[in-house]
Amino acid sequence: MRAIAVKRGENKPSLVEKPRPSPGPGEALVRTLRVGVDGTDHEVISGGHGGHPEGEDHLVLGHEAVGVVEDPNGTAFERGDIVVPTVRRPPDGDNEYFERGEPDMAPSGEYHERGIVGAHGFMVEYFTSPEEYLVEIPDSLASLGFLVEPLSISEKAVELAYASRSSFTWEPESTIVLGNGSLGLLTVALLREDFDRLYCLGRRERPDPTIEIIEELGATYVNSRKTPVSEVAEVHEPMDFVYEATGYAKHAFESVDALAPNGVAALLGVPGPWEFEVDGGSLHREMVLHNKALVGSVNSHVKHFEAATDTLAELPSWFVDSLVTGIHGLDDFEAAFVDDDTTIKTAVQFSEHEER
Amino acid sequence: MRAIAVKRGENKPSLVEKPRPSPGPGEALVRTLRVGVDGTDHEVISGGHGGHPEGEDHLVLGHEAVGVVEDPNGTAFERGDIVVPTVRRPPDGDNEYFERGEPDMAPSGEYHERGIVGAHGFMVEYFTSPEEYLVEIPDSLASLGFLVEPLSISEKAVELAYASRSSFTWEPESTIVLGNGSLGLLTVALLREDFDRLYCLGRRERPDPTIEIIEELGATYVNSRKTPVSEVAEVHEPMDFVYEATGYAKHAFESVDALAPNGVAALLGVPGPWEFEVDGGSLHREMVLHNKALVGSVNSHVKHFEAATDTLAELPSWFVDSLVTGIHGLDDFEAAFVDDDTTIKTAVQFSEHEER
Repeated sequence: MRAIAVKRGENKPSLVEKPRPSPGPGEALVRTLRVGVDGTDHEVISGGHGGHPEGEDHLVLGHEAVGVVEDPNGTAFERGDIVVPTVRRPPDGDNEYFERGEPDMAPSGEYHERGIVGAHGFMVEYFTSPEEYLVEIPDSLASLGFLVEPLSISEKAVELAYASRSSFTWEPESTIVLGNGSLGLLTVALLREDFDRLYCLGRRERPDPTIEIIEELGATYVNSRKTPVSEVAEVHEPMDFVYEATGYAKHAFESVDALAPNGVAALLGVPGPWEFEVDGGSLHREMVLHNKALVGSVNSHVKHFEAATDTLAELPSWFVDSLVTGIHGLDDFEAAFVDDDTTIKTAVQFSEHEER
Repeated sequence: MRAIAVKRGENKPSLVEKPRPSPGPGEALVRTLRVGVDGTDHEVISGGHGGHPEGEDHLVLGHEAVGVVEDPNGTAFERGDIVVPTVRRPPDGDNEYFERGEPDMAPSGEYHERGIVGAHGFMVEYFTSPEEYLVEIPDSLASLGFLVEPLSISEKAVELAYASRSSFTWEPESTIVLGNGSLGLLTVALLREDFDRLYCLGRRERPDPTIEIIEELGATYVNSRKTPVSEVAEVHEPMDFVYEATGYAKHAFESVDALAPNGVAALLGVPGPWEFEVDGGSLHREMVLHNKALVGSVNSHVKHFEAATDTLAELPSWFVDSLVTGIHGLDDFEAAFVDDDTTIKTAVQFSEHEER
């Protein structure tokens, strides 16, 4: 069977041939439908993040998958069930984080991430997975199921951020999402019911399809070339919640200025080392005097996948139609990895979903 | 009656004469017993923090008070009840934060702080207060009641920090308190039941009375001249919880290195502006990849005063005896403001408590 992998020493995705896997005890065999491409894939391909499985000369890409159960193999699934796999796996048997269903809280060394670090991903015609790492979704979401994983990342970050404000009365009204890539746009859509006033910051000039989506969602586009994050509070308004999805290192610090009193910023990007000057005294003081919080968040667990499935079911069809700019077959897989100004979200299609 | 105030244009406390106040409707008249001195008082005296009440040529100091109800004036109190006043007051009638009992979450401009900014403090023989800002404490705590306010600050910070970890399983075992002043020591005592392993960081060399207290509490003293915060994780162990009470601006950033995965640092100090270089990229990345949080915290509300009262009642007597290094009468009030290496916690005594 065919898979899309990055070979050791290369910085591009290639087609590789692999044997079809057999499910072990407690595992189901899944026929892959579609697998999304995101910024993490580009970082893995360029070598900036992640790592190959031990002893392997390639890493199968892909962590945003949807598939159909081909062989339940004694698990609770039925043949034909539509499932989305979670990403983290325990490297050596189980550990406490996986045992309690919170692999997203496992520290480095206590997890592999399929398609990212230490374990092959889902950009392959068939994959196996232990039952507990497969989340069933409605058949009607089969074509969009590759959006569950990225949405789950935001569900987790929002949950962490809200928890940090749970010891007092917090009624947030304004929010800004930093980043107008696909994760940023999904998050604006996720947050639109909760906030009276939404903003989304990017570096693009009009006309631009992401700006059109942002405005159609009822949010205000903020051009960071004109209004940097540190000036957002003054130019627009202080934000109760900041969601940082660009991985631009300075945003962590500038977010403190963007926040309203008692606000929280969730950080999700993974920048590399970068030394720069900050007014650390004023930043520290402002965090204290206005009870502000910064919360880092990575990965997600089954409950976040379930919440994301509910969120996905409620997204307007015009939004997902605009967001997904390309579904590419295996013969044309390179097109799914093109990242230009007309690309928002792409996926590779491995097989067709046939209605039950 | 006599009060201790800082006069406009001066940088020292002085005795001033003021008329005894009459309680208005809903207010009780309180005879002051003792008022503690802390770092904020020193900042107010030096002009680095706080401000005089509008139109007044002096600010009565003191925000850590305990007193006895002299005239209940129709409130629910009885004459002789021992009470501790909270610190924040609404500047113009009420506002939403005070209405819901969370004045500690009010932003700048929406509060005065008695003895700190905009309103006279409690270093005076008698004061009045609306009933809702007085917290009754047991008669047995009358002599130590001035420790309730500083303890309440830590109760609030710990509550906020724990809330930030409430969306997942968090079983913290290790903690470090940055700062071995009176607030730091009170916090080590507060945390000692919750943590298997406690550390307290300071800049003092042995022999030192604070180091003796730290060790008697079962904590490990960390000399920051030998082991800076950024090396604590390596030299000792990563910390699940960091409590930053020094106000040293760099600690906010170094705390990220000191934290264990999924850990949280509570920030309580109020440094002034200070620009310095940080590896903001690595810091941002580390917060994300290990789900770390930074939480600023200021002030406290009635429920934190109540929790602090319970905590105070449980503190070992040797600890408070060692902590309180001086109780000074009005004739000798300057001694309470001396801050040398033998001073830990002082208070000014305004009147004696007579047993009921």
